[in-house]
Amino acid sequence: MHGECKVALLGFGGVNRGLVELIIAHNSRHRTPTIKIVGVSDLLLGHCINKSGLDCEMLLQVPAREGAFAVLGNAAPDNEGVISDSGCDVVVEATFSNVATGEPGASLCEAALLAGKHVVTTNKGSVAHGADRLSSVAALMGRKFLYEGAVMSGTPVLVWATDCFPGARVTRVRGILNGTTNFILGQMEMGFSFNAALEQAQHLGYAEADPAADVEGLDTRAKIIVLAKSVLGRSLSNSDVPCEGVKAITSEMIAQAKAEGRRWKLVGDINVEGDELLAKVGPVKLMPDDPLSGISSVTNALELTIEPLGVTMVTGPGAGRVETAYAVLSDLLRIVGGLVREDEKTDAG
Amino acid sequence: MHGECKVALLGFGGVNRGLVELIIAHNSRHRTPTIKIVGVSDLLLGHCINKSGLDCEMLLQVPAREGAFAVLGNAAPDNEGVISDSGCDVVVEATFSNVATGEPGASLCEAALLAGKHVVTTNKGSVAHGADRLSSVAALMGRKFLYEGAVMSGTPVLVWATDCFPGARVTRVRGILNGTTNFILGQMEMGFSFNAALEQAQHLGYAEADPAADVEGLDTRAKIIVLAKSVLGRSLSNSDVPCEGVKAITSEMIAQAKAEGRRWKLVGDINVEGDELLAKVGPVKLMPDDPLSGISSVTNALELTIEPLGVTMVTGPGAGRVETAYAVLSDLLRIVGGLVREDEKTDAG
Repeated sequence: MHGECKVALLGFGGVNRGLVELIIAHNSRHRTPTIKIVGVSDLLLGHCINKSGLDCEMLLQVPAREGAFAVLGNAAPDNEGVISDSGCDVVVEATFSNVATGEPGASLCEAALLAGKHVVTTNKGSVAHGADRLSSVAALMGRKFLYEGAVMSGTPVLVWATDCFPGARVTRVRGILNGTTNFILGQMEMGFSFNAALEQAQHLGYAEADPAADVEGLDTRAKIIVLAKSVLGRSLSNSDVPCEGVKAITSEMIAQAKAEGRRWKLVGDINVEGDELLAKVGPVKLMPDDPLSGISSVTNALELTIEPLGVTMVTGPGAGRVETAYAVLSDLLRIVGGLVREDEKTDAG
Repeated sequence: MHGECKVALLGFGGVNRGLVELIIAHNSRHRTPTIKIVGVSDLLLGHCINKSGLDCEMLLQVPAREGAFAVLGNAAPDNEGVISDSGCDVVVEATFSNVATGEPGASLCEAALLAGKHVVTTNKGSVAHGADRLSSVAALMGRKFLYEGAVMSGTPVLVWATDCFPGARVTRVRGILNGTTNFILGQMEMGFSFNAALEQAQHLGYAEADPAADVEGLDTRAKIIVLAKSVLGRSLSNSDVPCEGVKAITSEMIAQAKAEGRRWKLVGDINVEGDELLAKVGPVKLMPDDPLSGISSVTNALELTIEPLGVTMVTGPGAGRVETAYAVLSDLLRIVGGLVREDEKTDAG
């Protein structure tokens, strides 16, 4: 890519708009690689292509309105055209996809890989349901398929688990991976009802209008399947992961736990038992000395049990527009090979 | 190194004995690289050299007694001989070194680098006081100088901070980096006096017979200097880091804080202010919602503030014989290029 990375964006919602903001900032610091946006397609807005690079500032000014890309190109979406005709090196897939089926994200990722593009996605559903096939296609095509943003947004947990423990074994993966439910459980500890807490979460933009994927645990389950694949190299399907949400947790149960110094949390858990993975998602009444017990509000946490190190944990933002966009930027820089931090000195030890 | 890594050990206390145990386990899994111990020197035990590899099981049976290496070689120590005559690729420096001066560790690291060896050390003092010079020598000689075990033992914090945030900036580094003082403060919250808590820490093996380096904050200060160098690529000296220990914290202050829902913690802190680093070590009465507030007992934590991600934190073991030995093993594998986890599958995404 010769110090230049040409990127096509599928979906132009919050995450990819955030990515464009980060790319403007990145390029303004005059460091290679220069990242260019050469094409964008969005179901609502339409599509636009410029092989020598679209104007990022102008892209950000395009309103989120039906057909709005007409001013830069065409009012109709065209994912296939943007993949094949933009001259991109990398496709960033951040469409609104169904967490239960992974579509349309998974099919778009596959089309991009088959067209010889590296692919970065933030869609946990696409990875949870398509990673086996997509990783195979990527290997076959000699391209990279990265998805750091699918779990805990830009908090680097996948790269941490896969790259930072050479010579060790992971025997357990456990986490609080959904900020919405963690916020709701926290508000219930403060005396609010489930419904009042859910309304607050929606008001603050944490929860979707349809909160089913969060409160029923489906979001956490998809992330557990992504972690099994990325961290343990193992494939799980939905039916391998018994899944319970938080709707059965009553105010009385919360109060009772509080009186015992304990906290209800929605926990995703994978135990490695020999060749078997025992995975599950559900509410757990944690003891006060459990490291996950202190994880509050929309912060998320991933805990690894490492042989021979012991228990170690990363906490950080679990969601957010710019946070998830940063995950994409970090994956792009991994693909391009620009692996140093922005502020890193060359003489660092 | 052709699938083989020849290692010389300087110092044969708990950490390097733990390393030999981990190397036996590593080699028994029949994965390259094979790690061979070709020489050991210890101030008390003496030294031994075998260019085709010492018997690791026999090494572990050597008692910690003056001149005990006579059975395998020589009752007198010979660091220089082991560096130059063992045919080693890497020198692991884990001698008992003074945290305030970094000696003899720093000089031994330099001698090994000048002899053309890669160097791994766990001595925070050696890194805090010698990293500028040692990094320069390593660069000049084309060798690696790694020290993951100098901060939070085997919990991978240096590699996390330097490798997992491409394209981002670290604006603050903050942590609870000394398990002994954190344990003492926790016991004081349970009603014990400082002296009683210190005795417990010594009884449990957390605190040295001379606890000055821990309770006066010197251990944390050395780690802050290591972090400034490794994470921020910047050099700090002792006089750049105002340092206060925990001896001024009274039972009354602990009780008062507890009544406010707050906790006293010994915190190391580096704020990046433009080109300036504002670093300090001292007790801080943390608010209950401070992520560091929940870090209890001998667990340690490193928090990074990342632009544009936000606040993220790693927690894990902060000390321990095998935990620190794992840091050395991970550095050895980084040098050799054996970067995959033991259990990692090749198809991981």
